[in-house]
Amino acid sequence: MFGQMMHMPLTIGSLIDHAARFHTAGEIVSVETTGGMEHSTWGEVGANAHRLASALRKLGLEEGARCGTIAWNNRRHLEIYFGVAGGGFVCHTINPRMGPEQMVYVINHARDEVLFIDATFVAAAGQLAPALKHCKHIVLMGPRDEAAAEAVPGLMFFDELLETGDASEPWPELDENAASSLCYTSGTTGDPKGVLYSHRSTVLHTIVGNQPDALNISARDTVLPVVPMFHVNAWGVPYIAAMTGCKLVLPGPNLDGVSLVNLIDQSETTLALGVPTIWMGLLGALETTGSKMPSLTRTVVGGSALPPSMIPKFAAYGVDLIHAWGMTETSPLGSVNQLLQRHTKLSVEEQAEIRLGQGRPPYGVDLRVIDDAGTVLPHDGEAQGDLQVRGPWIVDTYFGKDAPALTDDGWFDTGDVATINEEGFMVIRDRSKDIIKSGGEWISTVTLENIAISHPAVTNAAAIAALHTKWDERPVLVVIKADEVSEADLLAYYKGKVESWQVPDRVIFVDELPIGSTGKVQKNKLREAYGNVLLDAE
Amino acid sequence: MFGQMMHMPLTIGSLIDHAARFHTAGEIVSVETTGGMEHSTWGEVGANAHRLASALRKLGLEEGARCGTIAWNNRRHLEIYFGVAGGGFVCHTINPRMGPEQMVYVINHARDEVLFIDATFVAAAGQLAPALKHCKHIVLMGPRDEAAAEAVPGLMFFDELLETGDASEPWPELDENAASSLCYTSGTTGDPKGVLYSHRSTVLHTIVGNQPDALNISARDTVLPVVPMFHVNAWGVPYIAAMTGCKLVLPGPNLDGVSLVNLIDQSETTLALGVPTIWMGLLGALETTGSKMPSLTRTVVGGSALPPSMIPKFAAYGVDLIHAWGMTETSPLGSVNQLLQRHTKLSVEEQAEIRLGQGRPPYGVDLRVIDDAGTVLPHDGEAQGDLQVRGPWIVDTYFGKDAPALTDDGWFDTGDVATINEEGFMVIRDRSKDIIKSGGEWISTVTLENIAISHPAVTNAAAIAALHTKWDERPVLVVIKADEVSEADLLAYYKGKVESWQVPDRVIFVDELPIGSTGKVQKNKLREAYGNVLLDAE
Repeated sequence: MFGQMMHMPLTIGSLIDHAARFHTAGEIVSVETTGGMEHSTWGEVGANAHRLASALRKLGLEEGARCGTIAWNNRRHLEIYFGVAGGGFVCHTINPRMGPEQMVYVINHARDEVLFIDATFVAAAGQLAPALKHCKHIVLMGPRDEAAAEAVPGLMFFDELLETGDASEPWPELDENAASSLCYTSGTTGDPKGVLYSHRSTVLHTIVGNQPDALNISARDTVLPVVPMFHVNAWGVPYIAAMTGCKLVLPGPNLDGVSLVNLIDQSETTLALGVPTIWMGLLGALETTGSKMPSLTRTVVGGSALPPSMIPKFAAYGVDLIHAWGMTETSPLGSVNQLLQRHTKLSVEEQAEIRLGQGRPPYGVDLRVIDDAGTVLPHDGEAQGDLQVRGPWIVDTYFGKDAPALTDDGWFDTGDVATINEEGFMVIRDRSKDIIKSGGEWISTVTLENIAISHPAVTNAAAIAALHTKWDERPVLVVIKADEVSEADLLAYYKGKVESWQVPDRVIFVDELPIGSTGKVQKNKLREAYGNVLLDAE
Repeated sequence: MFGQMMHMPLTIGSLIDHAARFHTAGEIVSVETTGGMEHSTWGEVGANAHRLASALRKLGLEEGARCGTIAWNNRRHLEIYFGVAGGGFVCHTINPRMGPEQMVYVINHARDEVLFIDATFVAAAGQLAPALKHCKHIVLMGPRDEAAAEAVPGLMFFDELLETGDASEPWPELDENAASSLCYTSGTTGDPKGVLYSHRSTVLHTIVGNQPDALNISARDTVLPVVPMFHVNAWGVPYIAAMTGCKLVLPGPNLDGVSLVNLIDQSETTLALGVPTIWMGLLGALETTGSKMPSLTRTVVGGSALPPSMIPKFAAYGVDLIHAWGMTETSPLGSVNQLLQRHTKLSVEEQAEIRLGQGRPPYGVDLRVIDDAGTVLPHDGEAQGDLQVRGPWIVDTYFGKDAPALTDDGWFDTGDVATINEEGFMVIRDRSKDIIKSGGEWISTVTLENIAISHPAVTNAAAIAALHTKWDERPVLVVIKADEVSEADLLAYYKGKVESWQVPDRVIFVDELPIGSTGKVQKNKLREAYGNVLLDAE
């Protein structure tokens, strides 16, 4: 027997229509790529999204056609998010930090028919264009620009394209399982893999991702997604913003600390979201600018391990730092660290220790940890194993692949090693491929790195597994130092902080660490360089 | 082209499994019908829900079978909510304030095969039993009770039934559109009509209903649903509580002010939800008990028009009063009144005036107002018309009816007259059938009643349309007075508060007003009694 309620599909078009209808005057502030600040509203963004979908249909695009974007966070990118998906096409956001070869690969693999580019990328697009197999139109996200038109043959202009569309054209009727957007993971090895989101997965991720124990955005917030719109849908913020009618601040291309502090103060941002590297820059710039960021009440951080010192540093400005975990394959929200009722009675230091972990899964996400034999491990905070996840916004099959990306019993293996405690709090101990297996015991590289980074003379550090005759693997630390410090001093610094057998065997000082396109240290490159240092020394 | 994310159905079983798995030790406090307070956890409620589903299958129930409940808010009722729906059956919550005839009607119309009753209703169940056509088992929600067993032949006992079930039995695989629960509206005329909710509608209502701008419940809250579980799923609170892992306080049968104040203080409730009548009682009891309710930060009120004096009265205790609107046909959440960013700069008095309205629809709900000709009216805060609604948790077809309950273009007409302003704020001016149509102009009975109730000598008041030779209809006020006040004085009190032509023609003093089973004044009875007073007087 079926229920007898209305059946209405969960679509991205319905999100922006809600925004345009019930948050019509809600404000959007956009730092433009070509300079200056632009003010818009949900009403205008909604109308332009309909115009864009109408214009793309007139260009001959058919349902499901992919449209790529190489762009910063700005108002036109927001209109592309909603107009492309709402119109029944697929919005493929491309990471501009990829190398040109990878970029050509993903654009061709996605079969992008239209490519929207920000002014920053005109020259790059001109160079890529001849290699793009399916791309019919390259569109500069702005008004007509003669210089750009010369650089890229046949270049179209977003503002002119919009004028060919009809704002009153309704969205096509879509199945909620239709594809809406596409994002490629930039793994450290092999070709990038595409995750093809659906309208349903996106809308469910939007409404669950904004629970009070998740991003918790209300119509009274001013939200600054520093996390790029080319990076897993900017963690879902553009969709949540439309749903809630909050004021949205899009930072454009300048993500240095000083620019961000000024933008936060000028726009009276209450919530900002980004990766740890960004916040390190921001915290540095606070000293330069002297700002106390009076409007900011909380930041959400994710994307890589959280340096322990960051929580008290933000707390000094009255800002709660909320740690979240996810990946491209999880839309991305997998867990958020918000406290339980009993934690509110703990000291700030005790709370900070809990907040350092990756937190609890929201309803919809199920997490488990399993050992090498496939046994599901208990939620005791001790048993560590491979972290697996499932839920309605978790990848099933990579785009263009035949076989699901899942275990036989339907879980996605994250490639992380984690523990889950009795209260559901998950802590990522390491990446499965990074963790150091020494004499049958596992040593977390994250733990070793956090200790190194807390040393005043260390700027950055990476721990890797080096091969060892007796113990199979032993930890080696690769360090960038700011001040003078010896290997012996640094190793002595571990005393009392970890078990003696977990202390690294060697420290290697370097001038820089290899960083990938998502800002993470490429440990595979470090292992290539230094994985045999202990064997060689024997 | 379809997205390639996992497809997992939205089911009520997945809500309680999430609670049991990730909020295992989360606390549930239950005031028992037979007295005393019981403490349980989401882990235990989850296990008992699985036991119950297993036991019901062993009793021979098939998927879609309806199970009725006549019960207060308590722990076993919570287990029935999840166990019955999770098990693939349909939980039919019955309003015990219905008369016996209506009760027999809804139980037979629903074809309830099992009837769960609280101790309060043993005698009533014994009397109803012979008239129930499809009911195979009546189950007392408690341990074995020999006296009750004698009163109701064949009576079963919940705690014994649970013991026959297996907590490790997984939920059946259900289509998310399968029916999950059933609730009858008790209209003032005609037979009650059933609304058959689905798993999908319920889960979507749960996730959206807990947005920061809706009920906004976190794991740090202690939540007291005073609104009964037999009344539109207690506004969705049991489901939201499971999703968030908040502490849940179930008040049992004693809903008088003093009991509630004591319960709020004892359990340290942070959020309580109920109808205006309940809060009137609570506010009265605060004076008796001297409590300041230090833990309570907010109350949600809905179900009937909000007396304007209630907002400042709660504010004096540091409690935000949040006005929400909905009906059985809308699951019930249709709109919630939470402020916008610009409102936070207004004075408390200006905010209170905005808060009095019914608020804005959450994403998923679309509202419109139309005039008698079917023209959609603008969002200008002035144009009033019939309020219509649509969305994935709005009724399509009443249970057992062939034709949809909708307009030709797919909207549900609420029977309310409302305005919507530029910012999406909706205000209900009256019920369509109550509004007074005087010489082509509409007069809101709600406005007239609020003025009357604000007079110190008036306890309660209802305004109705009385027939009039010249003006078709004119307002007449029916009043219960606490102190001496004359008709002339009361009418003079309207001066300056409404236009002169809106002032009632007559005041009729009565000892009591007819109240229906959901606590609302039955205006149809008043119209029967007094609808001709003006004609008679001519």
